[in-house]
Amino acid sequence: MLQPATPPLTRSACEALDAADPLASLRERFVLPESIYLDGNSLGILPRAVADRVAGVVTEEWGRGLIGSWNDAGWIHLPRTAGAKIGRLIGAEPHSVVVADSTSVNLFKLLSGALRLRPGRRVILTEAGNFPSDLYMMQGLAEFAAADIEIRAVEPDELAAALGDDVALLCITQVNYRTGAMHDMRDLTAKAHAVGALVLWDLAHSAGAVELDLAGCGADLAIGCGYKFLNGGPGAPGFLYVSPRLQPDMRQPLQGWLGHARPFDFDPTYEPAPGVDRHLCGTPPVLSMAALDEALAVFDDVPMADLRAKCQAQIDLMLRLIVERLDGRGFSIETPPDPAARGSQVSLLHGEAFAICQALIARGVVGDYREPGILRFGITPLYLRYVDLWDAVDQLVAVMDEQVFLAAEFRERAYVT
Amino acid sequence: MLQPATPPLTRSACEALDAADPLASLRERFVLPESIYLDGNSLGILPRAVADRVAGVVTEEWGRGLIGSWNDAGWIHLPRTAGAKIGRLIGAEPHSVVVADSTSVNLFKLLSGALRLRPGRRVILTEAGNFPSDLYMMQGLAEFAAADIEIRAVEPDELAAALGDDVALLCITQVNYRTGAMHDMRDLTAKAHAVGALVLWDLAHSAGAVELDLAGCGADLAIGCGYKFLNGGPGAPGFLYVSPRLQPDMRQPLQGWLGHARPFDFDPTYEPAPGVDRHLCGTPPVLSMAALDEALAVFDDVPMADLRAKCQAQIDLMLRLIVERLDGRGFSIETPPDPAARGSQVSLLHGEAFAICQALIARGVVGDYREPGILRFGITPLYLRYVDLWDAVDQLVAVMDEQVFLAAEFRERAYVT
Repeated sequence: MLQPATPPLTRSACEALDAADPLASLRERFVLPESIYLDGNSLGILPRAVADRVAGVVTEEWGRGLIGSWNDAGWIHLPRTAGAKIGRLIGAEPHSVVVADSTSVNLFKLLSGALRLRPGRRVILTEAGNFPSDLYMMQGLAEFAAADIEIRAVEPDELAAALGDDVALLCITQVNYRTGAMHDMRDLTAKAHAVGALVLWDLAHSAGAVELDLAGCGADLAIGCGYKFLNGGPGAPGFLYVSPRLQPDMRQPLQGWLGHARPFDFDPTYEPAPGVDRHLCGTPPVLSMAALDEALAVFDDVPMADLRAKCQAQIDLMLRLIVERLDGRGFSIETPPDPAARGSQVSLLHGEAFAICQALIARGVVGDYREPGILRFGITPLYLRYVDLWDAVDQLVAVMDEQVFLAAEFRERAYVT
Repeated sequence: MLQPATPPLTRSACEALDAADPLASLRERFVLPESIYLDGNSLGILPRAVADRVAGVVTEEWGRGLIGSWNDAGWIHLPRTAGAKIGRLIGAEPHSVVVADSTSVNLFKLLSGALRLRPGRRVILTEAGNFPSDLYMMQGLAEFAAADIEIRAVEPDELAAALGDDVALLCITQVNYRTGAMHDMRDLTAKAHAVGALVLWDLAHSAGAVELDLAGCGADLAIGCGYKFLNGGPGAPGFLYVSPRLQPDMRQPLQGWLGHARPFDFDPTYEPAPGVDRHLCGTPPVLSMAALDEALAVFDDVPMADLRAKCQAQIDLMLRLIVERLDGRGFSIETPPDPAARGSQVSLLHGEAFAICQALIARGVVGDYREPGILRFGITPLYLRYVDLWDAVDQLVAVMDEQVFLAAEFRERAYVT
């Protein structure tokens, strides 16, 4: 379906790839930015239908429907309806995904619940370079939880060897936020199960970006983010997955009323809802959740396999352009060359990465910077063209040729997100 | 400033009260519903400016500004800017309130942190009739936390006597969600402090509804809800307050990256941010949080004392109308007659309360029902007129006269919120 991955070396060759791209029209579903936006792995762009949906939620459902909209507009079901859409994208069983709270809060729920399912074990195994917020949540749990918890953080290639029979839970992010390196879910899940451990996947950089088959991999637990590749808007709620196998026995400490079996009975004693719903907690932020729900409709008729194929072709193209045009400029490519071992981003290491990133942004090429020394470009085939990658690399070449990144204005550190 | 509390007994007398009401014009700040909406204690109505603000966040800040809006549009500061607005309404010290997560999740954070500050004590003292979700969160914490926790739930008038030196924390909702009865914050805080206990107030039915002086009462900790009297929209994020006295020593287990001292350093080890910011966790739902932030602007030039005075006059009016016009109909008034002992709602107990509530809604008078047997009317002086209360009681009289609540359509139970 796609062109062979032989990358073009001219802009017009990139234009030809776009002309032949069967997914090219998907970008019409978005409000396209003026910039070349390679930061959709941090905040996805605005799907065209979202503004009307949110406006309708505000003016019609809230403004006119008021309290009745919990039923009449289906607000009460949003965690499940949006969850089901994500479930399809990640290969989850029906009724195994809900949208709720933030990624971090969902991590806390599933960490707590998973440890209870392995009472004789005290180790959470993770990757030393895991997303810091995930490490912080583990640290918070270890400090406050009843169980005596050890967080064992190792290098990615040491994970399999570190799986011992003291490990309750392997908790890792499938696609590393810095390098874009991707773990093999099927392989690590099997290895963890072989020693009796559970696995909790953070799919923040996977959902909507790579093909996933949680059910087929025998996955246990997962969380993920709504605002990166799922385009749910700034701070969109996160999601969580609990395998139907584990649902009856999972409990979690954030026992809010929407996770109760009968929330409107106002029973003074908590009784967990059946299934994955017991992982809901307080009242969900409907405006943000509706935006995510609408954003997910973009994927409705898009096979993840097709998106992934285009993503790989785009990464190959960009890497080839970087090799050909930026040789000797001090960049090293952190993104794994093996397509099966990488997510949906291109990461370059450079001593001046911060300033280079700022200089690129000033020229309308939006990537981002991650400590230490990583220049990061998200590949989002839903709305990126091949020619955008050519233009991005072209600007990067110009920034290096002209050494504009040495200007003081690009070296001042401020919040980056 | 207000009319004497002698209630009028005719509709035209109510109209006269409205004509003399110095706060009458505030309702122009809202999109007014067609119904007589007495459910603003469950979901506040839409402030007029919110639709434009949210549309701007979606189309301009997200759609065009994209990732840059975390800085350029101040998204990163929203938890603090919205928190400061709530701080003024509740009499909190500067830099002591942030908006984050849900009310329930915030409760978990502060429960956990408070218990750590009283390590030799194991009792959380609460009210048996507290909002169930608050009880559930305590139960979840007790089940999962390191400390051996006892939840001691007593009747409201037994709280003071139950304060022993084994009590780590008194955790109660100031205004009871069913009856509207209000605890004396100053008195109970002093009594708790006298035995060395901390107090955590749930202000879900207080913030934006009653005058509060957390700083003056020497309050320790509080949480509250954004979507009731604060009109922040469905599922608006909650808020939390930590006294500046306690801020340096408070910790909490939901250690997300936005609560880190330097979130963008991506340090693998958690270090709590100074002050109240350490109670932030994951990335906030910006659309919902911006709606709340804008909704809070409604209060900008409104003294809470004036709002409270109108609220009391409206409650007195409604109670008088109920006494005069519904005598012998099986209602008992649960709302305390003492203005200092009640929040901002009128609660009636009746064996047929559920069906009566449904019949009233069908006639355009929106109250709500709470198990068991409570018909609840929220009093929201920002947008309620005296004549609305006359009309509401008039419809209630008609429903009882005509016994329409006996119709099967009003007796069928479905989700109510």
